[in-house]
Amino acid sequence: MANKTIKQPVVNGIRDKVLTMDTMNQSVKNIEYAVRGPILLRALELEKELQQGAKKPFTEIIRANIGDAHAMGQRPITFMRQVLALCQYPDLLSSPSFPEDAKKRARRILQACEGHSAGSYSASAGIRTIREDVARYIEQRDGGIASDPENIFLSTGASSAIMAVLSLLVSGKGKNRTGVMIPIPQYPLYSATLAEYDAVQINYYLDEEHQWALDVAELRRALEQARAHCQPRVLCVINPGNPTGQVQSRENIEAVIRFAYEEHLFLLADEVYQDNVYAEGSQFHSFKKVLMEMGPPYAQQLELASFHSCSKGYMGECGFRGGYTEVVNMDPAVKQQMLKLLSVRLCPPVPGQILMDIVTNPPQPGEPSYQQFQEELGQPADMFFCIQLLEETGICVVPGSGFGQKDGTYHFRMTILPPLEKLKILLEKLSQFYAKFTREYS
Amino acid sequence: MANKTIKQPVVNGIRDKVLTMDTMNQSVKNIEYAVRGPILLRALELEKELQQGAKKPFTEIIRANIGDAHAMGQRPITFMRQVLALCQYPDLLSSPSFPEDAKKRARRILQACEGHSAGSYSASAGIRTIREDVARYIEQRDGGIASDPENIFLSTGASSAIMAVLSLLVSGKGKNRTGVMIPIPQYPLYSATLAEYDAVQINYYLDEEHQWALDVAELRRALEQARAHCQPRVLCVINPGNPTGQVQSRENIEAVIRFAYEEHLFLLADEVYQDNVYAEGSQFHSFKKVLMEMGPPYAQQLELASFHSCSKGYMGECGFRGGYTEVVNMDPAVKQQMLKLLSVRLCPPVPGQILMDIVTNPPQPGEPSYQQFQEELGQPADMFFCIQLLEETGICVVPGSGFGQKDGTYHFRMTILPPLEKLKILLEKLSQFYAKFTREYS
Repeated sequence: MANKTIKQPVVNGIRDKVLTMDTMNQSVKNIEYAVRGPILLRALELEKELQQGAKKPFTEIIRANIGDAHAMGQRPITFMRQVLALCQYPDLLSSPSFPEDAKKRARRILQACEGHSAGSYSASAGIRTIREDVARYIEQRDGGIASDPENIFLSTGASSAIMAVLSLLVSGKGKNRTGVMIPIPQYPLYSATLAEYDAVQINYYLDEEHQWALDVAELRRALEQARAHCQPRVLCVINPGNPTGQVQSRENIEAVIRFAYEEHLFLLADEVYQDNVYAEGSQFHSFKKVLMEMGPPYAQQLELASFHSCSKGYMGECGFRGGYTEVVNMDPAVKQQMLKLLSVRLCPPVPGQILMDIVTNPPQPGEPSYQQFQEELGQPADMFFCIQLLEETGICVVPGSGFGQKDGTYHFRMTILPPLEKLKILLEKLSQFYAKFTREYS
Repeated sequence: MANKTIKQPVVNGIRDKVLTMDTMNQSVKNIEYAVRGPILLRALELEKELQQGAKKPFTEIIRANIGDAHAMGQRPITFMRQVLALCQYPDLLSSPSFPEDAKKRARRILQACEGHSAGSYSASAGIRTIREDVARYIEQRDGGIASDPENIFLSTGASSAIMAVLSLLVSGKGKNRTGVMIPIPQYPLYSATLAEYDAVQINYYLDEEHQWALDVAELRRALEQARAHCQPRVLCVINPGNPTGQVQSRENIEAVIRFAYEEHLFLLADEVYQDNVYAEGSQFHSFKKVLMEMGPPYAQQLELASFHSCSKGYMGECGFRGGYTEVVNMDPAVKQQMLKLLSVRLCPPVPGQILMDIVTNPPQPGEPSYQQFQEELGQPADMFFCIQLLEETGICVVPGSGFGQKDGTYHFRMTILPPLEKLKILLEKLSQFYAKFTREYS
C-alpha cells in the first residue's frame, strides 16, 4: 500500500526530498541580498572558527556590512531606553530613579495598549496614539502641512512597510507585469523584494560623476527602454541615498515628482536616512512636503508612500524593528486592502512602535529629560575617533563608551591577540593615525 | 509635453489612480482574514464613535476576536518583564530591586548581542545563544531527542516563520501549482497566506462529531480530489487545534506522519498552543518527537517544520512578536535559501527573541525567581471569574488584577454607563451569576 502511493523514485531506500533547489519557489531562489549574502555567511563561519580557537590574521569579525550603529559602539539614547523599560516593566513607574517625563510617556503609551500591556497585540496599523504622534511629527517637519493618522501605518522596520506597498503594486503577466524603477546603486531590499514578488526591476543609474545625482533624463531613458517588456508603474527613490549618501535638492525632487506624475507612476520615497545629512549646504526635503507645496495637479493626484524607521539616524535602534509609512492620495479602497494585508501579520512589534513614538515626539524644552536627550545626539569623541581610525586604517577597535568610562575621559579598547609581526604593523599604523588625529582635531 | 506622455484618460482634470482595486495585486485582493476582517474594522469604528460620546447599547468594545491574553487582563510574568527591562535599559543592572538571576540572564543575552545592545540587528536566524537555548528546550521537551540550533530560526511571531516556509514551498503553474492541505476550521493565517502566494488551498475537514478529530481517511479524500487540479506538496496540521482546541493523540500523529511520508508531503506542524492543553487525559506530543521515535524511514526522511511562539500559553506576549521554527530533514541548500529569504527582512525583533529565550529557558529550582515564576503560571481567581462571566452572560468586566489589588483580595471593575433599563438587566444577570459562581467554586 505504501509503495503504491509513493510518487517518487526510491534509491537505496532514500527518496528525493519534497523541497529541493529544483522544486522550490524559483522567485525566492532568484533573490540576491548582498548585505547579508555569502560574505556575511562566510563571516559567521569565520567567527565560529575564531571562537573554536582557530588562528587567523585577525582576531574578530567587524560587521561593517550593514548600517548597525549599536553594533559599532553607538550608545542608545537614555530616554528611549527608559521609556521602553517603564512600558515593559511597569513596576518601575514607582521607582524614583526614572525622570517624570519618561514615566508620563510610558503611562500614556500603556494607556493606549489593550489591557494596558505592551504584551497585547496592537491594531494592525499600529497603536492609534503613536500614529497620531507620527502625524504631528510629520506636520512639524514639513512646516505645518497636514498629516492624517489614518494615512500612517506603523511597521516592522521600514522594510516590512516597503514590502507591503510593493506587494500591493505588483500585478499583471508577461508584458503587463508591473515594472518598478529603482536606483543603481540601491539598498538591495528593493532588488530582493522584486525578485521575491517576480516583478520587473527597471534600473536607473545614479551619476557617480556628479555626487551620485538623480538625473531625470536617465529616469526617462530607463522608462522608455522598459516599456518594451513590462508595465512600469512604480518609481522608487532613496533620499538621502543608500548606499550613496547623496541628498536631493528641492529642484531635483520637484523634477522627479513631475516625471512620476507625467508617466503615471506610483512614487515610493525611502527617507529612512532623513536624519543623516552631513554635507555642507545639503538639506533634507521630504517628498511629501515638496509634493504638497507644488499644488495642483500634483498635490491632489500623485500617489506617494514615504518611509521612515528607528534603525538609522541618532537612534540607530535596528534590533527593535520600528518604522512607518505615510501614504498620500492612496485610493481608499486600496488602503483597506493594505490594512487587510498587514492584519495577516497581526501587528508590528510593540517595542518598535514605542521607539517610533519617541523618535517622533522627543522630550521638549522644559521637560526633565530634554537636556540629556539633546546632549546624547552628539557623537562622543571616542566614537568619532574609532570611526575615523577604521575608515583610514582598517583597524577596528571599540570606543570606551561601549564599556563605560568617567565623564570627560575617552578610551578605546583593542585586543592584542594578533601574531607579533602583525601587531607591530598595527601599532605603527595606530601611532601614525593618533598623531595625525590629534594634530587635526585638538 | 505633459499631455503627450500622460497615458491615462483625464476626466475633469482627474486621472485614474495608478493603484486601484482593478490594477492592484489580485492575490492580495483575494485574501480573507476574518480574525481582523470587517468585524474588527467595524469594532474600531464603534470604538471611535464611543470615544466621541455616541450612545450605544454597550459602553466598550470587548475584543474577543483574537487570542490576546493581556488585552483580556492576563498579567505578564514578572521574570520576563524584568529581563526585558534589564536588557533594554542596562543601567538597571546595578539596581538592587532586580533579582540576581534576572540580571545574570540579561547580561548573558547582552553579551550575545552585537555591541552588547538590544538595539543592534541580530543574525537573521536570531541570536545564536537564544537558538541554542531553544534547541535545549526542545530536547528536554522531547525526552532527549537531539535538536540542532542550526535548524532553529527565530521569527517575528510564529506567523512570519509559517509564511517563510510556505513561501519556499509554493511553485509551479496551473495544474502543477503547489497545493497545501489545511484543516477546516483553521486559523485564517493559512488561507490568507495561500491566497497571497496564489497557492492552491486544499481543505480537509476536522470531525466536529468527534471533538474535531483529524481523520486520515479525510486527509486521503481531500488529497485525491485535489490531485486533479494541483500538485499537493504540503500538509499543515495545527495541534493543539486553533480554533478547535482538540489535542491529537500519539497514534493519530503517527498516522498523519505515515500519510505525509507515503504521499510525499512536506509537513508543517503549528504547535503554538502546546502549553494550552486542558482536557483531562489529553497530552501534547510534538510532531518532532513522534517522528523521531518512529525511526526509519520516517525519522530520516520526512521533512517537517514545526512552530512555536511567545504569544500564547502562560506568557501571552503577543505584542512582542516572538517565535521560532525548527526544521527537520530540510535540504541543506534549501535551508540556505530560507536564511537568505529571512535576511531580506533583516532580523526578528530582539525583544521578542529575548522572550523566546525565557520561554525556553525559564528560572530553575534554586534560582531566586523560580518560586514567583511558578506561582504566576496559575490563573488568578478574579481573571477566572471574569472569563466565566463573559462566557456565560456576555457581560465583559475587567479583573481587579489589571488595576492592582491587595494580595489575597479579588475585584472586578465594571462601568455603569449603560441606560438605566439596561443596567438593571445587567445587574440582575450579574447577581444571578455571582450566586451560581460562589455556589460552584467556594
